[in-house]
Amino acid sequence: MTVKISHSEHVQNFFKEASGFKNDEGSSRMKTVINRILVDTAKLIEDLAITQDEFWKAVDYLNRLGGRNEAGLLVAGLGLEHYLDLLQDAKDEQDGLVGGTPRTIEGPLYVAGAPISEGETRMDDGSEDRVATVMFLDGQVLDVDGAPIAGATVDVWHANTQGNYSWFDQSQSEYNLRRRIITDAQGRYRARSIVPSGYGCSPDGPTQEVLDLLGRHGQRPAHIHFFISAPGHRHLTTQINLSGDQYLWDDFAYATRDGLIGEIRFSEGAEAARARGVEGRFAEVRFDFQLQKAAVPTAEQRSNRPRALQEA
Amino acid sequence: MTVKISHSEHVQNFFKEASGFKNDEGSSRMKTVINRILVDTAKLIEDLAITQDEFWKAVDYLNRLGGRNEAGLLVAGLGLEHYLDLLQDAKDEQDGLVGGTPRTIEGPLYVAGAPISEGETRMDDGSEDRVATVMFLDGQVLDVDGAPIAGATVDVWHANTQGNYSWFDQSQSEYNLRRRIITDAQGRYRARSIVPSGYGCSPDGPTQEVLDLLGRHGQRPAHIHFFISAPGHRHLTTQINLSGDQYLWDDFAYATRDGLIGEIRFSEGAEAARARGVEGRFAEVRFDFQLQKAAVPTAEQRSNRPRALQEA
Repeated sequence: MTVKISHSEHVQNFFKEASGFKNDEGSSRMKTVINRILVDTAKLIEDLAITQDEFWKAVDYLNRLGGRNEAGLLVAGLGLEHYLDLLQDAKDEQDGLVGGTPRTIEGPLYVAGAPISEGETRMDDGSEDRVATVMFLDGQVLDVDGAPIAGATVDVWHANTQGNYSWFDQSQSEYNLRRRIITDAQGRYRARSIVPSGYGCSPDGPTQEVLDLLGRHGQRPAHIHFFISAPGHRHLTTQINLSGDQYLWDDFAYATRDGLIGEIRFSEGAEAARARGVEGRFAEVRFDFQLQKAAVPTAEQRSNRPRALQEA
Repeated sequence: MTVKISHSEHVQNFFKEASGFKNDEGSSRMKTVINRILVDTAKLIEDLAITQDEFWKAVDYLNRLGGRNEAGLLVAGLGLEHYLDLLQDAKDEQDGLVGGTPRTIEGPLYVAGAPISEGETRMDDGSEDRVATVMFLDGQVLDVDGAPIAGATVDVWHANTQGNYSWFDQSQSEYNLRRRIITDAQGRYRARSIVPSGYGCSPDGPTQEVLDLLGRHGQRPAHIHFFISAPGHRHLTTQINLSGDQYLWDDFAYATRDGLIGEIRFSEGAEAARARGVEGRFAEVRFDFQLQKAAVPTAEQRSNRPRALQEA
């Protein structure tokens, strides 16, 4: 018979002590959270008869996970980041906050402080000119009634043709494929960039190690990340996943959502290319965003999630 | 009102998908464990109304925890390692496995492969001669009936006068204060070493960061770690905590247990020193261990916890 002690007064009391309930210092919020984690962990150990070897393998895993800075990747891959979106959707529904472009996960690869441009920009540094397909990305930022929002910030970032992100991929130039674009009077933003490839977890990393044990791949469809913000409007964290990608609805991070498919149109014709000022095949993506009104000023801001680089 | 969705069919189904239940690859054990972690985590988030900022701070914490290799220290400090001892005690009681020296936590600072000596050894490299107090440590390894066990391995490790452990403290020589002693025909082991100081968590480390928020210190009493093993007998992981230390019963890792207090006796007399072949003040600790019989061969082995160095 399985032995269980976590419900006993002795163990419950011990976890209260370990959580700091017997002293008056520190943070009462933290004490509550840690106590819950201890009680839940002990119950999990008992219910699933976790062995000593399993427990210590998990502890070692946490060291390796953090050692590779992959905790943010793991919570995306295990669906917890998408779950937070589902939970916020449910809270919004209860609060009557409806309409606008759906949110989806931020992912762990944002870097703050990208160059700012008015209206339009080029996002790539030209280093992949010989292998990349030029992508023209444009659209409007609108309110929920469809009125353009001038002066909105479109903070956009995406991977290169290898599925890698600048800063994390030190072989790329600083802020390559990362820009902030301020919308013009018609709420328009325009960028010339390159078609990104889908991201894949490092094959030798701790996130892929768990996914392998779950029988899951670690691939994402090609996609483009956005923070959209504007005074008086609610901050939007979202991304568009590009049509035609084999992983579009098989995203290991569960970011693809209805209303967030970016239709990518490839043009082969020489005339169309000339009109765009490029040579050969190119791609176009048009995507409009709609922002809710900010119910409170703090709603204009993104979360305080610790990010790769804090803005000065 | 708090919004809860984790019990919904949609979310439960989503977590099953994320845990790999919809495919036939990977490890079914891992799928079960991960699914439980996801469901528990979502329930915790909802019950305690964890904010986005709190969630992402926790994810960032996991990266910093692993980046400093402190996951093993944290589970000791939060009492989970001691809880595993309490759980094993309860299992032993149910199985009628009683008697012998109590187990207590291993801690995260063992290094495999220490030098082996027959019967006796010197553990310190002499580098702290001017500040350390010489400690003579000896005792017997016995079975539960009190009969000596010859050829038992006493794998012993402890901190230096600064509370630091060789290997983790790269300023110490290789295997300083780490030895394996094979007991003689009378089951005796003897070591000359130095009196250790208590260990303290790094003040700027992630473990101490949490302890601060819980209003707790991160100090341990002076102590000596042991793995005791012998063919036919059950492996024992334990430690003795030294009498007189201010943290003896206020150990942040909860390792001190009845039956595991090492009485340390200091001698000031010149004659006693001469008899021991030393000069000045010295200390003596005598501690006997009693091992249970191994019910199955695997009981002779320590856990497969990943450790700092695997033996060749």
